[in-house]
Order: sequence, then C-alpha cells, then structure tokens
Amino acid sequence: MKKIGVAILGLGVVGGGTYKILSEHRDFYKKVHGLDITVESVLEINKERAIALGVSESIISTNIAEICSNPDIDIVVEVIGGVEPAKSYVLAALNAGKSVVTSNKELFCKYSHELEKAAKKNNCGLFYEACVCGGIPVIRSLTDNLQGNKITSIMGIINGTTNYILTKMSNEGVTYSEVVKEAQKLGYAEANPSADVEGYDAAYKLSILSSLSFHTKIPFTEVYREGITEIDNTDIKYGKKLGYSLKLLAIGKNSENGIEVRVHPAFINSTHPLASVNDSYNAVYITGDCVEDVMLYGRGAGALPTGSAIVGDIIYCATHEKFNYSTFDNTANCDPATKFITNFESAYYLRLVAQDRTGVLSRVSSVLSKNDISVAQVIQDKVNKQDNTVQLIITTHLTHEKNINKAVKEINSIDGFAKVNSIIRVVS
Amino acid sequence: MKKIGVAILGLGVVGGGTYKILSEHRDFYKKVHGLDITVESVLEINKERAIALGVSESIISTNIAEICSNPDIDIVVEVIGGVEPAKSYVLAALNAGKSVVTSNKELFCKYSHELEKAAKKNNCGLFYEACVCGGIPVIRSLTDNLQGNKITSIMGIINGTTNYILTKMSNEGVTYSEVVKEAQKLGYAEANPSADVEGYDAAYKLSILSSLSFHTKIPFTEVYREGITEIDNTDIKYGKKLGYSLKLLAIGKNSENGIEVRVHPAFINSTHPLASVNDSYNAVYITGDCVEDVMLYGRGAGALPTGSAIVGDIIYCATHEKFNYSTFDNTANCDPATKFITNFESAYYLRLVAQDRTGVLSRVSSVLSKNDISVAQVIQDKVNKQDNTVQLIITTHLTHEKNINKAVKEINSIDGFAKVNSIIRVVS
Repeated sequence: MKKIGVAILGLGVVGGGTYKILSEHRDFYKKVHGLDITVESVLEINKERAIALGVSESIISTNIAEICSNPDIDIVVEVIGGVEPAKSYVLAALNAGKSVVTSNKELFCKYSHELEKAAKKNNCGLFYEACVCGGIPVIRSLTDNLQGNKITSIMGIINGTTNYILTKMSNEGVTYSEVVKEAQKLGYAEANPSADVEGYDAAYKLSILSSLSFHTKIPFTEVYREGITEIDNTDIKYGKKLGYSLKLLAIGKNSENGIEVRVHPAFINSTHPLASVNDSYNAVYITGDCVEDVMLYGRGAGALPTGSAIVGDIIYCATHEKFNYSTFDNTANCDPATKFITNFESAYYLRLVAQDRTGVLSRVSSVLSKNDISVAQVIQDKVNKQDNTVQLIITTHLTHEKNINKAVKEINSIDGFAKVNSIIRVVS
Repeated sequence: MKKIGVAILGLGVVGGGTYKILSEHRDFYKKVHGLDITVESVLEINKERAIALGVSESIISTNIAEICSNPDIDIVVEVIGGVEPAKSYVLAALNAGKSVVTSNKELFCKYSHELEKAAKKNNCGLFYEACVCGGIPVIRSLTDNLQGNKITSIMGIINGTTNYILTKMSNEGVTYSEVVKEAQKLGYAEANPSADVEGYDAAYKLSILSSLSFHTKIPFTEVYREGITEIDNTDIKYGKKLGYSLKLLAIGKNSENGIEVRVHPAFINSTHPLASVNDSYNAVYITGDCVEDVMLYGRGAGALPTGSAIVGDIIYCATHEKFNYSTFDNTANCDPATKFITNFESAYYLRLVAQDRTGVLSRVSSVLSKNDISVAQVIQDKVNKQDNTVQLIITTHLTHEKNINKAVKEINSIDGFAKVNSIIRVVS
C-alpha cells in the first residue's frame, strides 16, 4: 500500500480539523483509496493545544527545517494564514521536494507566481482548493470541469461571516453592530473583524477565482472593494419590499470591453439562486459560454468543511503523478494588455431623505435624467411628522457608476433639499 | 504544442454540441491549455446531418475499425447512447489504446466493470462526467474533491424533463398529460418519454452516483423506482398549502443499517435548496461527514452544457498522465455483504376521499395508530356537495414504508368509507 506522510503547519481551526479527519479516516482511506496517510509531524508552538487535539508529543515540532529534511513527509499542509512565516515555510517545503496543500488565500492570492515557480522547479504539487469557500469544490470545478468554457461571469457569496451578519440583520431586524457583537461571542467573527466585514477576505478569494476563470493574473489590488459596515437596516427593509435580498457579492466579469472585479454589498432579486444562500453558507454562481449557469453551494468555512478540501487535495496529490499549474500567465502582475473596467454598469437603489415639499421628486428626477439615469421604480414613504421629511426610494435601470456618483453629488449639493443616504448596487 | 485528435461517435444533440465547442474553441484551447484539439473523425450514418453541422465530408466515417486504426486519434467520444452498438465501439476503442469519454449513462451504469477492465488493461482513460447532470461538475466533485468524506447521503433532481413537467404543473396548474404534450412539441421530452417520466434515466444516474459515493457497485436493478405519470395536480396544490414542493427525487443514503437507493416523486420543504430548482435545471445535494452539505446546481442536459462536460473530460484526459478508476469494487454486482434497505423510513402525505360521516377521521386515525404511524398534520377540506365526500389530507411523522402500505390497504378495505387516493413520500 502506498504510504503518504503529511506534516501540518499550524493547528488552529483548520489545522485541527485536518488532523482530526486524517486520524479518524485512516482505515477508510486505506480501504477506499489504497493509501495509508499518516500525520508525521505538526508544526505548532502551542504544545498544549496540539496535545489537547490528541497529537502525540513526539511529532510536535517547532522547526520547519526538521520537517523539510524528514524523508517520511511527502505533503506539507500550510494552514497558518497570513504572509509570513507561511510564505517562507511553503517555499522551504517546495524546495525540499514536498508537495504543498494550503488554505491560505492571502498568501496564494499575493504570491501564487513565486510559489508556483518553486513548485514547478521542484516537480511538486501546489494545491489550494481550501483557499476559496471551504469544502465547496470551486477551484477544481474551474480547472478540471469547466475548463472548456470561456467563463463570462462569476458571482459569489464567498465570505461566511458577512453572510451570517446580513442574514441576521435581514431576518431579525437587528443592527449591524448588534449582530457583530453576537457573532464575535459565537466565534463566527474575529475580535478584529475587518478582514471579513471590510471585504478583504472576499477580495483575496475573488482575485484567485477570477485569475483562474479569465486566464490572466488578477492582482488583489485591482479588486474594487466595499464592506458592509455602513449597511443600514432601513435599506434591507425597503429592499425586501422591492423583492431584493442584500448580500455581500464578489463579482467577476469578462467581456470584450475588459474585466470587472468587485466586492460590495448588493441587492439581488429574491428569486435568484444566490438570494436564498443564508447564514454562513457560501455559493459561487458561474456562467460559461457552453455550460450556461452553474452554482456551487455549501459550507464556506469551519474546521471540518475546510479540512474536507485539504484532505481532498492530499488524496488528489497522492493519486496523480503529474501536477498541473495555473492556466494564466502567473507573473506577479496581470498581462499589461488587460483592461480593468472601473466605471462599470449597474442598476442602483438610492434612498433619499427629502423635505416634504412640492417639486422634490421632479427635481430629483430631472437631475437623474440629465445624467442619463433612467428610473425603474419609486417608493415615497409616509411623511415623518417630526422633521417634515420623507424617505424616497428610487431604483434605476442599468447605468454607469460615474453617472450615479455625479447625480448623487448634484442632489446632495442642493442645500436643505434632499440628501442621498444610501446607494446600493442592484445585481441581476 | 501537444496535439490531441478526437473522434466523435454519433452526431446527435450532444455529439453536435461537442463538435461545435471543439471547432469554435480551438484557438482558445491552444492559448489557454497549450493543446491543439482537432476532430479527426466523426462516426455518423446520416451524412447530411454531419455536413449541416459543418463537418468536412472527408472525416465522416461509418466504420469504427477505421477510427480505431487511425493513429491521429487519441480520444474517442461516445455519444450514441443505449447499449449496442455503443458498448462494442467503446471496447474496440479502448482495446485500440484510445481513451474514451462518454455521456452514455445506461452503458456506464450497466457495464462500468467491463469498460473499466478494458481501460485499465490498455492503460487508457475512461471518463463519464457527462453521464450525470450535463455540465454540472458532479462526478469529479465526488472523486477529486469530496473523496476524503464518508458520504452519508446524496439527494438530487437529476432528470430535467420531469423537473420541467413538475414545475409547469405546479406553476400553471396544468395536468400531467397536457404538459407532456407541450414538452414533446418543444423537444424537451422524447416521443416516447418513458425513460424520463418512469424514472429510468434518473435511476441510471443514481446507480452511478451512489456507486461512487458509497464505494460499492450499486446495480441499477437495486434502485427502487417510481415515475411521475400518476401525479395529480390536486396533490401539488395541497402540498403547496403545507409548504411543500413536489419533485422527482433520486435519493441514496448510506448508514450502518445499509444502503437505500430510490427514485420517486416526493414532497420537499419549500425552504430546502432543492425546492427552488425549477424548470429543466438539475441539482445534487451531497452530505458528507466532513464537508456537511454541498449542492451542485445547473443545466443537466442540452447540447452545449453536456458538451461542456465532455470537453472538460477531453482536456482533463489530455493534461493528466495517469488515469484513475473507480474506488469501488467494480464487478458487475455489488459486494455480497451490501445490505439494501427496501423497507425504508419516510414521512408521508396521504390524500383520502372520505364519506362526510361522523367518525371517519377517528376511524382513519385509529388504523394509522394501530400501524405505528404518528400523524403530523391533518387538513379536512370543504364537503363536495355532489357526492357528499371530503378530501382528507394527512401527513405523518417518520415511519416504515411497510407500515404505510399496510395501513392504506386496511383503510381501503373498509367498504364505502374512505379511499386513499395518493401516497407521496415527504423528504426533509
């Protein structure tokens, strides 16, 4: 029977989950895959944590060189996160001829060129399914199933924490800051939640997904990014009335005009399959020129779901003899010919607080029309007797982002008249 | 650049789609995958059909031996369907050292053992992603992504024709026979629709999916199968009131007690992700012990979506040097130790037409209770004044199939009292 020795770098949530899966499934993998997979070493400074997980003290190491020189180790699993020391460790492992499986989206997003170069040079595999959407088979679906398609669009809910927050806000009418506190208590959100709520995590993942989909390196820095910290319940409520769900969407589009990559909150029609992806679930909706629409849905995070992706990569690595690398020109930067669309088109939802005076709607409409913005729907809510204002909800047809920005600026500049409180893109 | 010569056996819907994709994407595959993929031959008796698709007359063949002896052909795509002559052609191709890509679920379901044996012997690849759910990446998700999991359950809407019919019946209130006629006119249903509407197509696919998931050959003959021909609009209507959607589900479950494989119409809670899979869309909902729940959704049929899966297999075959085969003991029959559960547990929906007399509900309830069936919900509809009957809808908690059958027989045997018109399983 083929023996596969694994080292796990970091025994946090995902490392712990991976250790548990490998230990508990050893006989199953022998029987089903003909592989005897054993954890030969774990790199973990916190010995107690490792021992609490059932790791034998004899295999706990604090020295990457020890792991790299261990001939019993074939595959190194990097689940430390962040750039350093993860990057140095991965390069050391590859240069020692070990294949690497990683869940480190920041590292892979920023340094895939350097890591893949080392992997190729040393004839090693470099696997990163666990970087995007935990256990959902997204990466390999793009590389091994849909690779005959020209992918025109990917649209995803690819951050579980923000989806949990938005679902709670939507279902229970609670405010952003209330839910964040609760999510932190439950361990769904970090003490410093900015990587999630500001959209960085989703932007890393979108950079990886869109590079694979569009066959050119899409640097993280090209991803337009807006988080959910400014989301107001009032807009979720009005959105529902209009038949929309509010989601933090990661959107990548490729057309003759160029490539669009953006992460931002957006309203989506409640009949769209993504609209019913709730709580901490993730989903990626892919459109290809042959396959039409495909959606992949599941648990985007967590010890065992992400461990499932890592173990899937380990078994894949152990059962394939030739390793494939990115189909894009994997330099640090995108092809200089790549054009990024920053003034993209979208439909918009605007919420204005306006003085309850004659002529407000007509004046707002005239500003919009002057900026080539065509109105789709208007809701004017009851007058707030205290300050004599009304909430005015306007949705638009497709228009350019710059037109909206210009119109909003113009409306806001009309003193004491109307103020645009919220601008939310509407995606179909 | 690596050259890959392809032969396509059969230029029907899927063969035509595959030809179109390969022809139109040739430059794209050169650029992105470094592969020059050309169609070197097509096997098609109907020359006119091939020429209409743009196939040059010089590569149209009617002789499989010619294709097998052509050294420019690396991969043979079999999209003829049915057992013969497809089986002989596939075996001839494998024995000539060609890898095979097939969309033929009946052939693969019934003869995977014989075909894989030939593939292994000749060191060839045998790929069948296109057999199940068109362009949706189901097969490779099971073999290359979720293979670290013990899969406990797969549940799918895996036949587009029946899902189209049920969606129409549900949304428009039209009868089964009306929709079938319309679907035939639109080309969504065959002139003889029995393979779809009787559940054979879904059963072939479920046999393949559950064999892969549970790592033992699940012969087609072990799949319990019931079609949708008896479905009455009345039940769809009452189901909606209860919060259910009616779907033709393919269900495979693996537990310590044994394996369940069944295809039948079922009510599913309208909040379940499968409930909103409508029209000709397909989806497979997979539960694994690590990954929890994953759903894969998309176009389950059609020229280009299924062609996408075939071309995905072609490129995979061309970019991998070692081929993997089934992880189950691929003999014609399942492991003799495999236990199949035929008296499975389910919740049930029963619709009775009863005389509007005192004591009917109490008598029905007493029969159910005597048979260990616990009632979950009861709806008694208005009296039909013409014949003095009432519709009585009863849903049950989990119980054994045989208990339901016994109770229904007993109720029906009480003369002139109540008749069970519909029994539909309720799945959660």
